Parts: sequence; structure tokens; C-alpha cells
Amino acid sequence: MNRTLFYNLIYNNHPMEILVEDGLIKEMAPQAALAENQEATRYDCGGYLLLPAFVDSHTHPDKTIMGMDYRHDYKETDLLSIIEAERALRGKTGLDTFTQASRYIERITALGTLFTRSHVDVDTENGLKGLEGVLEAREKYDDILTMQIVAFPQSGLVVRKGTYELLDEALKMGADVVGGLDPSSIDRDPKASIDAIFKLAEKHGKPVDIHLHEPGDLGGFSLDLIADKTIALGMQGRVSVSHAFCLKHQKRAFIEKLGKAGIHIVTSAFSDITPAVGPLLSAGINVCAGNDNVQDFWSPYGTGDMLERARFVSMRNDFKTEDDMNTAIDLCTENGARMMGLEHYGLSVGCNADFLLVKSDCITSAVSLIPESRIIVKGGKAILGV
Amino acid sequence: MNRTLFYNLIYNNHPMEILVEDGLIKEMAPQAALAENQEATRYDCGGYLLLPAFVDSHTHPDKTIMGMDYRHDYKETDLLSIIEAERALRGKTGLDTFTQASRYIERITALGTLFTRSHVDVDTENGLKGLEGVLEAREKYDDILTMQIVAFPQSGLVVRKGTYELLDEALKMGADVVGGLDPSSIDRDPKASIDAIFKLAEKHGKPVDIHLHEPGDLGGFSLDLIADKTIALGMQGRVSVSHAFCLKHQKRAFIEKLGKAGIHIVTSAFSDITPAVGPLLSAGINVCAGNDNVQDFWSPYGTGDMLERARFVSMRNDFKTEDDMNTAIDLCTENGARMMGLEHYGLSVGCNADFLLVKSDCITSAVSLIPESRIIVKGGKAILGV
Repeated sequence: MNRTLFYNLIYNNHPMEILVEDGLIKEMAPQAALAENQEATRYDCGGYLLLPAFVDSHTHPDKTIMGMDYRHDYKETDLLSIIEAERALRGKTGLDTFTQASRYIERITALGTLFTRSHVDVDTENGLKGLEGVLEAREKYDDILTMQIVAFPQSGLVVRKGTYELLDEALKMGADVVGGLDPSSIDRDPKASIDAIFKLAEKHGKPVDIHLHEPGDLGGFSLDLIADKTIALGMQGRVSVSHAFCLKHQKRAFIEKLGKAGIHIVTSAFSDITPAVGPLLSAGINVCAGNDNVQDFWSPYGTGDMLERARFVSMRNDFKTEDDMNTAIDLCTENGARMMGLEHYGLSVGCNADFLLVKSDCITSAVSLIPESRIIVKGGKAILGV
Repeated sequence: MNRTLFYNLIYNNHPMEILVEDGLIKEMAPQAALAENQEATRYDCGGYLLLPAFVDSHTHPDKTIMGMDYRHDYKETDLLSIIEAERALRGKTGLDTFTQASRYIERITALGTLFTRSHVDVDTENGLKGLEGVLEAREKYDDILTMQIVAFPQSGLVVRKGTYELLDEALKMGADVVGGLDPSSIDRDPKASIDAIFKLAEKHGKPVDIHLHEPGDLGGFSLDLIADKTIALGMQGRVSVSHAFCLKHQKRAFIEKLGKAGIHIVTSAFSDITPAVGPLLSAGINVCAGNDNVQDFWSPYGTGDMLERARFVSMRNDFKTEDDMNTAIDLCTENGARMMGLEHYGLSVGCNADFLLVKSDCITSAVSLIPESRIIVKGGKAILGV
């Protein structure tokens, strides 16, 4: 039996300690209440703040150029040009997906992200090469990171013949989620696009995660079709929509419909077109956060850090109180775990001992100041972070 | 004669070296061109990226709670309530301005900010106590930081009898700039407010720096009055307006008028009400950046880092190319130096050897990733950063 007592840590503004037995949280108690336990290895957490391990609900490990020559020529601005340019870039730069995904995983796990949902491009030009690289990286880092892979038609599904079959193959190869992209503006045929996505989902018994950049009424229309389909197929709780910029200006009744359809909304919450988090949460929507692009053709920004993402969520939503900041952390932890359907996740007795210790004295200071100094605990084993 | 050769550094994407003699930049040349110079101490810069020292054009060292108990109850949202609450807070928390300003200065200089324009609250309740503390801190850190102090009527000038006399006294005590705040919405009498500010400026021969939060047409009106007064008094180049949220929606002709009046615009460039930088620059306005609030009653955010501020400027303005990122850095360096009227500032022969080395390979990666690892050089002397 393997027992470790993590002591001298802060949780909810109080000193705490955690007893871990064979990788599970066995006991949590105020500081020193478990101190006489002699059979456990003792681990001094240095007064750090305890958080559950981060869940990054939207990542792209196949396309980061992290560690490669830094590009200086991000000139494209509209969606289609970026998609075209990126597809070409893969060949030009000789981007090796396994290597890049590995670099990415090493970075994010050191920052405390132990769970991700990763979108991997599948298209008729690059085929399944990206997926193969990410599958290989997932396997390699299996002991530290839990990754769900979305087979993602970044270049369009219906609009690009042959993509459906590739997605089908990707799901057979090990992808966990059916991806989609702008059924109206990119796929040009919302009904056919949504039908195809859900057909694959039914066939493979998999959840759905759709990128929806479409603005205003157009996005609202696509999202409404997605909600109807979700309800018709009884897939409540198994459908996610990423970005959903259109939700910035939708009526309360519509947002509530999405809540009832159990649609998860995933946000990267930086730009001012991202919907405010509060109204979505209060309509019963599970809102999750993700880093999205980390140093890739879409954006030179992005460090991969979910604590930074929590800060972006907070700043974007004018969060100022400790309660607000806790909400931001929820988006980066519990809510993502709910979307991913993770079992035994969290900070309570019986859960897997996957957690994070941050050099900070409260959630507000952690979210505001993003300390780099961290201790990552996976299955009860402490690993020093960055 | 004191000579140091800083070698193994990157400037404009090329290897460079810098010979410093008695605190001044004596020569700058491609890597190894100066290598045979035997009389100089050699300093290996580790391949770091060279930037001029940061100029933080808008700071509040008198009100940060850095290092104090972190507050969790930022509930106020409107301007007047925050002002009231902050004034009360000073007494309650026993905030000691000298201590806080000292902490602040130690932090920002370690991050590479060697020049600041600091607004210090002067009001009829706290009087000149804050100013005394900041003056004392300025004196203490005189060898590393150059600070201009703005006597700032945070609680209003015209609207609060006795403030004018306190500002007058502050300028006699050593404040360098006459501050002002929302002549219409806070002072309730724009003509009287602007007259009072410029009267003090004329009397003491000092420049002006006005906080202007007023939105849309109201802010445009106040700003127009400020521009007229500036032109009438021949104070072109000696008037700054901080925030100027109203500029988000002003016509080109008006923005050009501000450019001709030589009005500097200072932005903290995070929230989506901040004006876009491009149109201001192209109308000939000198735009500078500042951290503004760093962990105080106004905001729990803020690390004091100007490289982070450059990133906010970049993200807010959708900057993606190396040229764009250079513009963001200009706002945090050269443009601020221009506003402050700093002499011998910059990276050219004859300038003071005040510069910064950042662990990065290009401006894009520096701005995107904000590396903490830095070497600060002040007067030719290398100081390790954070």
C-alpha cells in the first residue's frame, strides 16, 4: 500500500492536508488533523494553494509550432484564408505532428493540465497523418495526460468530398469525438452538415464537438439546428459547441433551450466577441474553457497555461471577487471534467489524486498573477512543474 | 574609464554587440566586430533579445496593495463608488505609501521598467501624505528608476474645494506634472476644471496629464476643450490624456486635430473600450502604454510587467506580424520616452546604456510569451531581473 500525506497546503483559504492511498484521495482534513499518521510518506507542499488538475477543453496539439522557428508573417485574417494557408503550411514547414504534440504535452502537463480535449485536423490533403502523430503522442504520455481526441474537419466536411469517410476512419482508429465546423458559413449546407456529424456520432456511439464561429443570427440558426438534433437523438449532455460567438447577442429563452439540451459551451474567452459567461451559467449551460491556439498559424499567442486562461476569462468578464475567480477556475477544471465525462475527478474523498499546487495564497491572487511555480500531483505522485 | 562589451545578443533578428563606456552606448555592431576590444569587461548576454528599457507611462505606485493581504471584495463597479471606497480603504488598511511604492519599484525595475510617469492621489482627506511617501521612495531608488510624478486629483478638483491649493503645494514639493480627471463627469464644470489644470501648469511651468474616462460624445467634448486650451497656450507636446475611451468612436478629423495639438494618448489597452492604436498612430498621435492599476482597489490584476502590457496592446489590436509587435513595443518604450521628454533615451550611439535583455529569439515571441528571464542594464551596469 502506497500512502502519501500532502501537508502544508491552502484550500478555500484554510490550511489543509490530504492523505493519498494508492493513487486515490483517502482523507482531506484541516492542517495537522492527520499529522500523527506515521505510515505515510510526508510531502511538504510549502503553503501552496490547492486546485484540481486543469482540464483544457479545447486544444490543437497537432498544429502548434512551439519550439520551431517563430513565424513573423501572420497576415491572413479571414477564416477561409487562414484555413487554406495553414493547410499549405504543414507541408512547407515540415511540421511533424508527433514531435509537436509531444512538446505541447510536456509543456501543458508541467503547468498542471492533466486532461484535454484535443481537436485534430482531418482533411483530404493531409489525411490522417496528423491523427497518427497525436495518437502516438497520446500513447507516449498516457501516464500523465488523459486526452480525448476530436476528429476535426478543419477544411470543411460536406463542402469537401471524401472528408466524411476520413472522419469515419479516424473514429475507427481511436478518435473519441466527432468534430464539426460552421455548418452554414463553411459547409454551405447546414442541414447536411449537421446530419453528417450526428450520423457519424450515432454510428460510432461518440459525442459531438462543433466549432461554431458564425456570428449573430446565422450562428444562432446553426446552433438552433444543433440543439434540435441533439434533443431529437436524445444526445443531451453529449454535444459541445466551441466558441459560439453568436451567443453574445442571443435571447434568454434561446440560451435556456441550449441549457435544457445539455449543450456544453467551450470558450477561449479572450476576444471581445466571446459571449459573457454569467448569463450562460445561470441558464444552466455548462461552460468550459480551453486554450485553443497555442503559438500556431492562427495565433502567435498562447502559452498553454490554463491558469492564464482563467485570468482571460476573468478579465473578459470583469471578474473581481474571490467568488468570481472561483467561477473562472471552475471553467478550467470541474466544468471541463463534466463535459469530458471524467470519472473520479475532483477534490473529494475517493477521487483520483490528480491535483495541482500553486505558489499563491488565494484563488484571486492565483488567477490575477498566474504564478509559474507549481507542483503537479498525478495519481498521488508529486511532479515538479515548470 | 569604465568599459563593458555586451556580446551574444539579438537585435532586429541579428546577432549584435554593444560597447558601453562610462554609462553611454559607445558602439553597436554586428556580433564579433568589436570582439578584439581588449580593454572592456566582457558580458555574455546568452543570446537574449535586446530591447530599450521599458517606459511605463501610467502607474499608481501609491495605491498598490502588492505584498499586503489580498483583497477578495472588489464589489464596486462605477467610478464614483470606487473612488469613495478607495479613499476610505487607505485609512482602514493602514496602507503605507512609502512601503508600497518601494515594493512596486523593486518589482517593476526587476522586470525592466526604468522610467515611469506615476500618478499620485492628492485629495482633501489624505492630503499630501501619499505624495510624501512616493517622493521618499523615488529618492531611495533614484539610481535605478527615473520617475515623473503627476499630482493627481483622484477625488476631483473643482468639485472638491481645497484640492487646487493642495495640487499647488504638491507641485512646489516636487511633483513634475499637473494631473486632472474627467472635467465634465466628475468635476461637473469642464471649463472651470480645464482652466484650473492649465493655470497650475502655467504657474509652475509643468506639463499636464489628464485621466479621461468619459465615453463617446461627452468625452469627445472634454477632449476638444483640452485640445483648444493646449493650442491656445502653445503647449503642444506637453499635454497627455490617459485612457481617452471616447476615442474609440471619434471621427478622423478630430483625431487629426489631437495629433496637431501634440496631445499624447496613454492607454492601458486591455478592455474593449480602449481605442484601437492604429488609427491614432496614423493620425500622428504619440500613443504610449502604461500598466495603470497593479493589484489595487481598482483591479486585482496587474503584474507591473510592460512586456505583458505590450502583449495586451497586441491582443487587443489583433496584432500578428513582427511589425505589429514592434509597434506594441514602441508604445512601451520610445513613445513613452517621447512623452516624458527623456533625453539620451534609446538604442543608439550616445544614448544612456539603459536597456533590457529578454530570453527570446524575436519580438513576436517576446510579446507573445512574455518570458520572465531578463537581464536589466542601467547605466551600463547589468542587473539580473526576476
